[in-house]
Amino acid sequence: MKAAIRTGRLAKKPLPLGEVYRLLEPGPVVLLTTARGPRVNVMPMSWLTMMEFEPPLIGAVVSNRNYSFGMLQASRECVLNIPTVSLLKQAVACGNCSGRTVDKFAAYGLTPVPASRVAAPLVAECPVNLECRVVDTRFVPKYNLFVLEVVRAWTDGRKRRLETFHHMGMGRFLVGGRTVTVPSRMP
Amino acid sequence: MKAAIRTGRLAKKPLPLGEVYRLLEPGPVVLLTTARGPRVNVMPMSWLTMMEFEPPLIGAVVSNRNYSFGMLQASRECVLNIPTVSLLKQAVACGNCSGRTVDKFAAYGLTPVPASRVAAPLVAECPVNLECRVVDTRFVPKYNLFVLEVVRAWTDGRKRRLETFHHMGMGRFLVGGRTVTVPSRMP
Repeated sequence: MKAAIRTGRLAKKPLPLGEVYRLLEPGPVVLLTTARGPRVNVMPMSWLTMMEFEPPLIGAVVSNRNYSFGMLQASRECVLNIPTVSLLKQAVACGNCSGRTVDKFAAYGLTPVPASRVAAPLVAECPVNLECRVVDTRFVPKYNLFVLEVVRAWTDGRKRRLETFHHMGMGRFLVGGRTVTVPSRMP
Repeated sequence: MKAAIRTGRLAKKPLPLGEVYRLLEPGPVVLLTTARGPRVNVMPMSWLTMMEFEPPLIGAVVSNRNYSFGMLQASRECVLNIPTVSLLKQAVACGNCSGRTVDKFAAYGLTPVPASRVAAPLVAECPVNLECRVVDTRFVPKYNLFVLEVVRAWTDGRKRRLETFHHMGMGRFLVGGRTVTVPSRMP
């Protein structure tokens, strides 16, 4: 399915790459966007881990049954978009159909806007967007594990905790509640 | 440091291996326990991802600067223990010192008890314990990424949501709040 990428400027500012881990370590659902020629796609995923602080490396498992797998493998680029709970229903809907047959951006009211360093679009409705390049595919044949490097990161810069959601299986999600801070020397 | 592993039975029951992903996908901090000869250690970590549902495979990044790295590499076994928020201070304390010089179990009031399939101990205070074997070390030299297979899983079986905590960096943690359920066909 073809979805047009909207032009125009996003009201976002760069996020320092060294701060990316703070957003991904808590384990939020992310929306993975990919592009291949005129086609774009978006799927929710949770199988991610940080692998290095800076430049940020991320291990991402994308099943080879997913339409996004082929697009990621061919383009070697993607965007990880972090949604908040107001996008929960759209995220689940994106996970319950395939980009082979559905233009999910149009179907679920998500807005693809151009990224700066990769062809895959940013999801405008997500407050954080991480533009990534695939830097290692050696674990793809056996585990579907792509190593991604974040090359550019965006945030809407609003000072509030992001109310991320975290997948517990079978449509159940944990929604971030309070935060607590304990003195620590660890990054 | 040497810490004795307490004998005696834990009041826990096996957790079906196919349900492990539901506990790890939301991204909780886990306590990694390792053993090497008479030595045992425990450290908190967040750099984990599910890689396969069943048998459950987990990608775990353990820095080669950590004492646990050598123990994990040599023993090829570990336990991932999922703590709840009542253990937050102990978990942070375990991350701010090294097993090279501190018996963290004794120092922070954690109880090591024998696992069934691996030499590394379970942390009695954690409601979930996942006994793991290292099944692939090819990404260790470059990324410190161990592929773990969960060979036995334990839960205290109490029917309540686990109030896990999720690392946001610099001593800040997200504590799971409400859960929401959305109809979904996805596991």
